Amino acid sequence: MTATVHRLDSPAGDPRPQPSLGPLMALIAGDMNMVNAVILDRMRSQIPLIPELAGHLIAGGGKRMRPMLTLASARLIGYSGTRHHRLAAAVEFIHTATLLHDDVVDGSDLRRGKRTANIIWGNPASVLVGDFLFSRSFELMVEAESLKALQILSGASAVIAEGEVNQLTAARRIDLGEDRYLDIIVAKTAALFAAACRIAAVVAERGEAEEAALDAYGRNLGIAFQLVDDAIDYVSDADTMGKDAGDDFREGKVTLPVILAYARGSEEERKFWKDAVEGRRDTDADFAHAVDLVRRSRAVDDTLARARHYGQRAIDAIAMFPASPAKDAMIEAVAFAVARAY
Amino acid sequence: MTATVHRLDSPAGDPRPQPSLGPLMALIAGDMNMVNAVILDRMRSQIPLIPELAGHLIAGGGKRMRPMLTLASARLIGYSGTRHHRLAAAVEFIHTATLLHDDVVDGSDLRRGKRTANIIWGNPASVLVGDFLFSRSFELMVEAESLKALQILSGASAVIAEGEVNQLTAARRIDLGEDRYLDIIVAKTAALFAAACRIAAVVAERGEAEEAALDAYGRNLGIAFQLVDDAIDYVSDADTMGKDAGDDFREGKVTLPVILAYARGSEEERKFWKDAVEGRRDTDADFAHAVDLVRRSRAVDDTLARARHYGQRAIDAIAMFPASPAKDAMIEAVAFAVARAY
Repeated sequence: MTATVHRLDSPAGDPRPQPSLGPLMALIAGDMNMVNAVILDRMRSQIPLIPELAGHLIAGGGKRMRPMLTLASARLIGYSGTRHHRLAAAVEFIHTATLLHDDVVDGSDLRRGKRTANIIWGNPASVLVGDFLFSRSFELMVEAESLKALQILSGASAVIAEGEVNQLTAARRIDLGEDRYLDIIVAKTAALFAAACRIAAVVAERGEAEEAALDAYGRNLGIAFQLVDDAIDYVSDADTMGKDAGDDFREGKVTLPVILAYARGSEEERKFWKDAVEGRRDTDADFAHAVDLVRRSRAVDDTLARARHYGQRAIDAIAMFPASPAKDAMIEAVAFAVARAY
Repeated sequence: MTATVHRLDSPAGDPRPQPSLGPLMALIAGDMNMVNAVILDRMRSQIPLIPELAGHLIAGGGKRMRPMLTLASARLIGYSGTRHHRLAAAVEFIHTATLLHDDVVDGSDLRRGKRTANIIWGNPASVLVGDFLFSRSFELMVEAESLKALQILSGASAVIAEGEVNQLTAARRIDLGEDRYLDIIVAKTAALFAAACRIAAVVAERGEAEEAALDAYGRNLGIAFQLVDDAIDYVSDADTMGKDAGDDFREGKVTLPVILAYARGSEEERKFWKDAVEGRRDTDADFAHAVDLVRRSRAVDDTLARARHYGQRAIDAIAMFPASPAKDAMIEAVAFAVARAY
């Protein structure tokens, strides 16, 4: 019997259909309803501003990527219990709390095509409702009665916060370099993806090997996901993605497209990038020039190539699991994640 | 045998010495060294800004009142293990995270006589380092391996956040009323005092009655503590307390002295208070007038009388425990808390 090899890059001319999250969402739709019920229940508070503000973001069209991963991972390993529902909701709350605080930290005004909570209700409310959701997430974890899952998720939360502080102290430094950039995105994005997947194996009480495989799937997918996000800022527009193209550029964020374009640029181009990340280049014309530079230096192409590398590693991390609809859907989710920018 | 009755109000002319935290601090000094070691260890991070910013507040002369209460409660019930050390550190981290976020929310520039972290390092860093400490607190709780303690502390954290949001939505409303004010201070201050005390009985695996007694001691002490804090804003000055007198007034905070002075005031005085909490009265002369009004209406005296009421309830909550140096020290701690403003 020949091993089935799943590869991200299709041969030239292969008319492979556009990958989608559809199969994964269909697979876990029933579980996700349960998770959504937990989420809605635990957003409640006698203080009306809390569900109002939290609901703006939670009901606001996010893909629920992270709880989806917990649910898919549970399917992959054949877990049929319900202990992971509360944990999946907890993961979404951690993520939402992080988004609320991120938008305060970055002063963002638009997320997923909607005005951010900090713009509507102000920074103080966003900080405090983030804290509330964060606390609620721990209450949910406690109810799942797994100290190991608690350890993994509290550890991931600390790593996320460290990653955010690392990013903050690296802000507007054109000399960031790819390694430190990777450290930051591993901490602020990939750690929660990894934890979301790993906890499925924890509550199912599988062994360390399955935990590690799911962790690696989530971590590599998370890195790929963030790389593509950072590439999209230089190729898409608000109409298609609900994210303002050029947001990262205007905020002076040093992402991989910038790091590569800077490294590969002429002296004059480097000056442009340094000026841009230090806040002296933020007009539409500047952004158009930046898009031109990242294209000509193949910085976006190579950011996406890096994403495919981590995507392939995610797929290989779960190669050991037998074929199943869950496995197919998780592989297609990776293909979807890395194909978003095309 | 006659019951020993501990009462806060001494008879007229009683030359009772000024109460102090000294006996309590001496009692738990050894334990506190262990807790401090945990705190210093867990503030560490490869991101230098984290220990730098966290250390500013944690090393900055706070009394460590909350971990002190965990340690004292453990003494009171005769617990001689060490499981509560990590929990006491976790409680201090929750408190510190809350202070960092509070100062961002309030835009404060001075705390304990020092410039606040948000002034020195900016709001984004304060938000994120707060998140880091909050995550670390949960890691510490997980290590203590008590799901029940985790439940109590995560619940308290959610209640604190709810209380802060409640306070935010009530901001600058002169018609707040004493009941809602009490709801707010119970949530934002007393809940963590209660949890800090209760968890000692939890890790010691005492029964519900001892848990409830310690919870009531902490909760009532917390209320008294906050009432006195709110009174102090109208009687002390920066030299004596490390807190700017008039801070609450200038921020338009509706605390009990204001609520009482407003309720008892003439029409003209009510207009003054409304203008003040809505931000139209914030000069030194306005504050001097406010101090005069709260004094004349006995609003500060009665805020302190309320504090003594809760202080007495704290003392009575632990009446059932046999006499011990720990009990004496905990009673004196209450007397200290309510005597601070004299």
